[in-house]
Amino acid sequence: MTIDRQVLSTNNSLKLDPRSDLIAAASQFYKQGWMVGTAGNLSARLPDGSFWITASGKSKGELQISDFIRVGNDGMILERSHSDLKPSAETEIHQVIYQLFPEAQACYHVHSIEANLVSRFVEGDNLPLPPLEMLKGLGIKAENPSCFMPIFANHLDVGKIAAEIFDRFRIHPPQIPALLLKDHGVTVWANSPETARNYIEVIEYIFRYMVVACQVNIQY
Amino acid sequence: MTIDRQVLSTNNSLKLDPRSDLIAAASQFYKQGWMVGTAGNLSARLPDGSFWITASGKSKGELQISDFIRVGNDGMILERSHSDLKPSAETEIHQVIYQLFPEAQACYHVHSIEANLVSRFVEGDNLPLPPLEMLKGLGIKAENPSCFMPIFANHLDVGKIAAEIFDRFRIHPPQIPALLLKDHGVTVWANSPETARNYIEVIEYIFRYMVVACQVNIQY
Amino acid sequence: MTIDRQVLSTNNSLKLDPRSDLIAAASQFYKQGWMVGTAGNLSARLPDGSFWITASGKSKGELQISDFIRVGNDGMILERSHSDLKPSAETEIHQVIYQLFPEAQACYHVHSIEANLVSRFVEGDNLPLPPLEMLKGLGIKAENPSCFMPIFANHLDVGKIAAEIFDRFRIHPPQIPALLLKDHGVTVWANSPETARNYIEVIEYIFRYMVVACQVNIQY
Amino acid sequence: MTIDRQVLSTNNSLKLDPRSDLIAAASQFYKQGWMVGTAGNLSARLPDGSFWITASGKSKGELQISDFIRVGNDGMILERSHSDLKPSAETEIHQVIYQLFPEAQACYHVHSIEANLVSRFVEGDNLPLPPLEMLKGLGIKAENPSCFMPIFANHLDVGKIAAEIFDRFRIHPPQIPALLLKDHGVTVWANSPETARNYIEVIEYIFRYMVVACQVNIQY
Repeated sequence: MTIDRQVLSTNNSLKLDPRSDLIAAASQFYKQGWMVGTAGNLSARLPDGSFWITASGKSKGELQISDFIRVGNDGMILERSHSDLKPSAETEIHQVIYQLFPEAQACYHVHSIEANLVSRFVEGDNLPLPPLEMLKGLGIKAENPSCFMPIFANHLDVGKIAAEIFDRFRIHPPQIPALLLKDHGVTVWANSPETARNYIEVIEYIFRYMVVACQVNIQY
Repeated sequence: MTIDRQVLSTNNSLKLDPRSDLIAAASQFYKQGWMVGTAGNLSARLPDGSFWITASGKSKGELQISDFIRVGNDGMILERSHSDLKPSAETEIHQVIYQLFPEAQACYHVHSIEANLVSRFVEGDNLPLPPLEMLKGLGIKAENPSCFMPIFANHLDVGKIAAEIFDRFRIHPPQIPALLLKDHGVTVWANSPETARNYIEVIEYIFRYMVVACQVNIQY
Repeated sequence: MTIDRQVLSTNNSLKLDPRSDLIAAASQFYKQGWMVGTAGNLSARLPDGSFWITASGKSKGELQISDFIRVGNDGMILERSHSDLKPSAETEIHQVIYQLFPEAQACYHVHSIEANLVSRFVEGDNLPLPPLEMLKGLGIKAENPSCFMPIFANHLDVGKIAAEIFDRFRIHPPQIPALLLKDHGVTVWANSPETARNYIEVIEYIFRYMVVACQVNIQY
Repeated sequence: MTIDRQVLSTNNSLKLDPRSDLIAAASQFYKQGWMVGTAGNLSARLPDGSFWITASGKSKGELQISDFIRVGNDGMILERSHSDLKPSAETEIHQVIYQLFPEAQACYHVHSIEANLVSRFVEGDNLPLPPLEMLKGLGIKAENPSCFMPIFANHLDVGKIAAEIFDRFRIHPPQIPALLLKDHGVTVWANSPETARNYIEVIEYIFRYMVVACQVNIQY
């Protein structure tokens, strides 16, 4: 079932291959300090429902086209450049996001310092966001918007995280296409890699605002 | 009245086209984190009174010459590369600035975290600035200068913001060529794109100073 | 015993020469502000047990292949491009790390502001680290991990620092491949230059988290 | 006496021309946010005692070889590319530094946010520095060094600043080759442009440490 050493599938031309978008986004996030060490994982969905996801253990500042694994919507490995490559340990989270949100074509997970800190700003499982104009970048158009980001517990067992996301979002879909793992980082999804990158930028901006607002005693 | 798909007007040679200045400034501001997502808008005025302004929804780190719309001083769209392009949602603010200040040839609006925070440092509609040497970069030459930046409320209706700017500045022009929207960001204007970029740099420096001064209990 | 002016030893082909990895890491750390002035030192071990280490007094943003000295495991200078070059003043610390940890192939020492600050967060000689997912990047796999980084006093006499490291680690090896010098910076070691760079990134991330967590009163 | 439009003097070959060092340093400091707008000024001395200094009003991120003015040790303009160019408003400070310190070959003045803040950390005219290992980069070699940086008042009249520097340093030379102007920024001097750049890096590192130490209540 696994087709190793076949970097490019014959069905997807290079032009449609989203891996170059993932490489560019990873390099940009790495420079921002949101994917240090080998942290974080990015994926993009193909028309057949499978998705390319970053392999485990690679530095995100220097990804190659061969550092991705194509995974089916059932979690099976469909394609990789080398049989030693393992898909990201958090592949199940990407799977459950694509299952829940049919419009999602890209799913990005990064680990900023600020995301870790704001995940501890509240006891509960919903983080209130400040009413910034910048929320328009996440599709929130209102004067003084009231907006929350769902928080999930971080478990060593990624399958347990994925199950909790599925169970919660099936019943209560979030206001914005994003979720926060406690002490771990944010995950966003969007209808294109470009929009997923923009969402990450806007959310990390909001987190930085929240951290500095706390330092200068600004209430919102 | 709209001349679509005509990237360069025949009256303005490439040499005089200010869009390359706007692209360079946007790229620089984007790298600083002042134009994340697709936030912010930049414009430059032409000799005939019309101005090039960034189209809505474009990432500011990778603008193309075709990502601008030429707008008349009456707000009419005069030129764009594609009929789907919409001018920035905040075009009316640029219009009113050019109307109020005949010497203004460029108008830049960016969204820094610090601008959002300092817009909440006071209850009133005037933000006192610290007496830094750096104020010389905004034309303030005095020992221990006393300088204020006007603050405006942020409305979902941009026309309402523009009207409030017009009504206030017609009677009370500001000390420095800049205004701050609450929770939204700063707008500057200058007699050239280069000077507008310098003003943004100086003002964002002052905002960062104000935020950190607050963190370390420095009064000014 | 010293072979001056022989930049590349005939036994090590350029392909296996780790100095290009050290140059790239130094340039990256310099840009982050972790090797300002001429601070910090990086080394990588060769199959024969000797190691290349940065020469003293060189700006780390612009190292050349000739800015390294090859030192034997006994501390003798084996190779350098010019007889004026002196090995880093902290060469003895690298020596003792390679002696203690046979698997170590690279040893990196950098001076971040945050490392200096967190070295003063505790009175004792063990710094507790926050239970971040990011610790996985240092080999810690546990839910809510309890992890400590050893702290050593900074002495003008580097030999004294090296002796204290040797005496402590021979009996109590650390949980993670890193140590902190008070007011001075962090040292890591790893089985490759690439992994040493990743460790530095992860540890500096954790230090930044600790500093900002302190600013916003987050306990961990 | 003024030789306009003569970019390169015939006595100084391009190889010995220090302006390329000044351009590189300015570009680096600009990217760090220490020379925003058109702030700051850099100079380097020639064997005949004259010095090249940045012209007034130029953006420091994009200096050209023609953006410098050669000034004699008596303050006379000796050479410039265009008669409209004015030497930096703070040329008198460079003059007095070169007069006081015959070994000085370069003098750099930058405006960081942190320099402005720490200039207000004390009431008096001496700023105590923290006992960091990094002070070795300024020539201070001691365990737990006690080191001070002189502070001067900022006057609109630069000649008054220069006179106060001359009067104080003639009698009490500073421990380290640096001085701080209140609300204005730091000036360093060194025996080469490269060393002056390293000093700026080390001093700005120390200022950042001081600001963050204050935020997290670290005493030193």
